[in-house]
Amino acid sequence: MPEFLYLLPPKEAAQTWLERVIHRTEAETIPSAEALGRVTAEDVLAPHPMPPFDRSGVDGYAVRAADTYGASESLPAYLEIVGEVPMGAPPKFRIGAGQAALIHTGGMLPEGADAVVMLEYTQRSREDEVEVLKAVSKGEEVIIKGEDLAEGAVVIPRGARLRAAEIGGLMALGILEVKVARRAVVGIIATGDEVVPPSATPAAGQVRDINSYTLAAEVQRGGGVPRQYGIVPDDPKALAETVGRALNECDMVVVTAGSSASTRDMTADVLDSYGPPGVLVHGVNTKPGRPTILAVTAAGKPLVGLPGNPVSALVNMDLFVIPALDRLHGLQIRRPKPTLKARLTINLPSAAGREDWWPVRLRQTDEGWEADPIFYKSNLIFSLVRADGLLKVPADATGLPAGAIAEVRLL
Amino acid sequence: MPEFLYLLPPKEAAQTWLERVIHRTEAETIPSAEALGRVTAEDVLAPHPMPPFDRSGVDGYAVRAADTYGASESLPAYLEIVGEVPMGAPPKFRIGAGQAALIHTGGMLPEGADAVVMLEYTQRSREDEVEVLKAVSKGEEVIIKGEDLAEGAVVIPRGARLRAAEIGGLMALGILEVKVARRAVVGIIATGDEVVPPSATPAAGQVRDINSYTLAAEVQRGGGVPRQYGIVPDDPKALAETVGRALNECDMVVVTAGSSASTRDMTADVLDSYGPPGVLVHGVNTKPGRPTILAVTAAGKPLVGLPGNPVSALVNMDLFVIPALDRLHGLQIRRPKPTLKARLTINLPSAAGREDWWPVRLRQTDEGWEADPIFYKSNLIFSLVRADGLLKVPADATGLPAGAIAEVRLL
Repeated sequence: MPEFLYLLPPKEAAQTWLERVIHRTEAETIPSAEALGRVTAEDVLAPHPMPPFDRSGVDGYAVRAADTYGASESLPAYLEIVGEVPMGAPPKFRIGAGQAALIHTGGMLPEGADAVVMLEYTQRSREDEVEVLKAVSKGEEVIIKGEDLAEGAVVIPRGARLRAAEIGGLMALGILEVKVARRAVVGIIATGDEVVPPSATPAAGQVRDINSYTLAAEVQRGGGVPRQYGIVPDDPKALAETVGRALNECDMVVVTAGSSASTRDMTADVLDSYGPPGVLVHGVNTKPGRPTILAVTAAGKPLVGLPGNPVSALVNMDLFVIPALDRLHGLQIRRPKPTLKARLTINLPSAAGREDWWPVRLRQTDEGWEADPIFYKSNLIFSLVRADGLLKVPADATGLPAGAIAEVRLL
Repeated sequence: MPEFLYLLPPKEAAQTWLERVIHRTEAETIPSAEALGRVTAEDVLAPHPMPPFDRSGVDGYAVRAADTYGASESLPAYLEIVGEVPMGAPPKFRIGAGQAALIHTGGMLPEGADAVVMLEYTQRSREDEVEVLKAVSKGEEVIIKGEDLAEGAVVIPRGARLRAAEIGGLMALGILEVKVARRAVVGIIATGDEVVPPSATPAAGQVRDINSYTLAAEVQRGGGVPRQYGIVPDDPKALAETVGRALNECDMVVVTAGSSASTRDMTADVLDSYGPPGVLVHGVNTKPGRPTILAVTAAGKPLVGLPGNPVSALVNMDLFVIPALDRLHGLQIRRPKPTLKARLTINLPSAAGREDWWPVRLRQTDEGWEADPIFYKSNLIFSLVRADGLLKVPADATGLPAGAIAEVRLL
C-alpha cells in the first residue's frame, strides 16, 4: 500500500481516484415516464421532425404575409375569412390571395398560408372578413416543420441525467422507453466494536450506527440503491469476508469506519487487498474528513473508507460518494451544482493548505445571504441537523475574515 | 368568478392563493430509515441526553487537567498510565492524581478524568508512563453528557423536511420511527381535443400530451405522488366529471389545459365551480406562464389550471405546484433555495411589470457563471432540454442589459 505523507486536497484526491474507476453499471430499458433522475446510456435520436408540420405559435389568423404588407391601425388590410382551422385535424381548405383563416395555438398552418397575425392585431369587421392592423413577415408566429428538431437529430445525448424537461421531450417524440444506466448498488458496511444498531440501547462506551443510514440516504439522493451489510467487529478477517461478499453483489462498497485509528488502519489494509491498484488515497487535506480512504479494486470498482465521525462522513459522502455514483452511471453532462454565496458573520480560522467545510445557518438579508457558523466538537451529528449548508474555507486561505463572501454547499 | 384585469406578479399570486389552501395531508408513522425527503408532522424530542456519557472527542490520553498545567515540549508533565479505555464498554479503573489512560475517539471518560490530551501532544516515554507536552484545560477534547442535546429537547421541529443529517440524528437517538405528513396525491388531468397520448402517432393538427408527464416528474421531485386521469376532450361536462372524481381521490388537482383560449376559459369555469372561494387568480404577470389559473375548493384543496405550452407549464409547476405541495405537507422550515447568480451575455428585452423566466445555458468562467439565453418560440419543450436553468428578469426591470448579474433557477 503506497503511503501518502502529503495529504491531497479533496478535488485532486477525487480525480486521482475516479480516473481509475473503470467499472460502469450496464444499460437497461425502462419506461420514459419512470426515468426521472436516471442517466441515459445512449444518444436519444428524434424519430421524426418536430414539429411534424408547420404550426401556429399563437391564437390568430393564418394569412399570406404579402397580403398584410403596409397594413396598420389607420390603414388595415381586409381579408376574407375562409374558415377556422380545427384543433386535432388538418384544415380542409387552403388560403388564397386576400384570404385568412382563424387558427389556434398549435393549429396546423393551412396550405397557402405562410404567417400568422396575432388575434390582438386583428378586428373582426364582418362575419366573413377580418381587419389586419399590422404587417407580418413570412414565417411570423409560425413554428416550421423540423424547426425544433430534424429527424435523426440527437435529442438527449448519452450520459445525461433526465430532468422533467427531458421526460417531456421524450413524450413529445413518442419515445416511451429509454435506455439508461442501471442504478448502482452501493454496499454499506459499518465497523467498530463500539458500534451498535440504532435499535439497541448503547451501553457505556457504545454508540449507535449513524453513518450507515446517512450514507444510505445520500446514496438514494445520488440515484443509487443502498444495500446494508450490518456492523462488523474490529477484526480484519471478518471485515475482509464482508467486503468480499459485498463486492460480489455491489458496484461500489463503502466502509464507515469506527472512530479509533486502529480500525482505520485495519480498514485501509483490507481495502488495499482488492487491488491493484488498491488504496490510492489515504487521508485527505480537509476538515472534517481527513481520515478518508479511497481505493479501487482490480476490476475497477470503487471502494471507500469513511471516517467514523458522522459529520466527517457526511461531508465526504458529498465529496466522494456522489461523484463516484455519477461515474458508475456514466454521467457526462454536468449541470451546475446548486451552491450559494454567503457573507460570513465572524472570523473563521483554518490551517493553510487545508480545505475546511463549516456547518452554517443561512439568513437572507437585503444584501444577500449571511452565514452563521455552527461550532461543534467532533461527532456531533446535531450540528448538521441545525445547519442549512457547509461553508467552504478554501485551501489557499488561512481562514476567512468576517464579511468575506464564501461558497456554501447546501446539505 | 371574480375577474382580475390587473395581472398579479407570481409571488403575490402564489401568496393570495396558498393562504386559502387549508387542506393538509394527515400524519403517518414510517420507519426513520425510509423518511428521506418527508416532512415531520410533530416535534421530535430527544428520548435521552446526547451524548449519554462524557466522551472523548479525539484519540489521546484521559487526564486530570490540573496535572498538565505548565506542561510544554521543553518541560513535559510525566503521568502514570493506568490502562486503556476499551471501546464499547465503560473503563474499569479511575484516574487519580498524576495518572492517565489511553483513550480513543468516542471512548467513555474514566471517573476522575476531566480532559483529554491529543495523541500528538504526548510521547510514550516508558511502558507505564506518558509525557504530556502541552497543558489542557478542564473539559478540553471532551464531549460532556447532554452537551449536544438535553433529554426532552426538540431535535427536529414539526414541519421540517428530513435530509440525510436528520436521518442520522434520528438514528443517533434510537428513534426508529417518525411521524410525517402523508405524501400528497396530485391528480393530473390533460384537456384539449387536439391532445393525444404519447403512444399515439399524432395526425396533422394533433400534439402529444407532454405536460402530464413533466408534471408527474415535478410532483415526484416535490415529494408528492402523481395520479394520472388521462386526456379529457374540450367539453365542460366531461372535464367537471373528471375533476370531481379526482378531487375525491386526491389532495390537489392540476388541469394542464389545451392550447386554445376557449379551453382555458372552460377550465376556469369548471375550477371555479368547486368554490367558494373558487378561482382566485386568473392570469399571472409572468412570461411564459401568463394564462395560469389558481383556485381553491370549498374544502380548502388547491386546484390549478396550467397553460398548455410545455415551457409555460414547467415554469409554473416550479412557481405554484411545488409550493402547494409544501403547504399540503405542512412544511414550516424553509431551507434556502438552490439558485445561482450568473452574468447575462446579451441584452434581454422585457415588458415593465412582467416577470420573465428565460431558459439559459450556463458556462463557468473565472469570474463566475455566464448565462446564454436560449431563444424559442412558444411550445418548444426542447429549449428546456437544452437549458441548465431559467434566468429571472425581475418585474421592475424593462429588460436586462448584457453584463447584468441575474438569478438563475436550476431546472
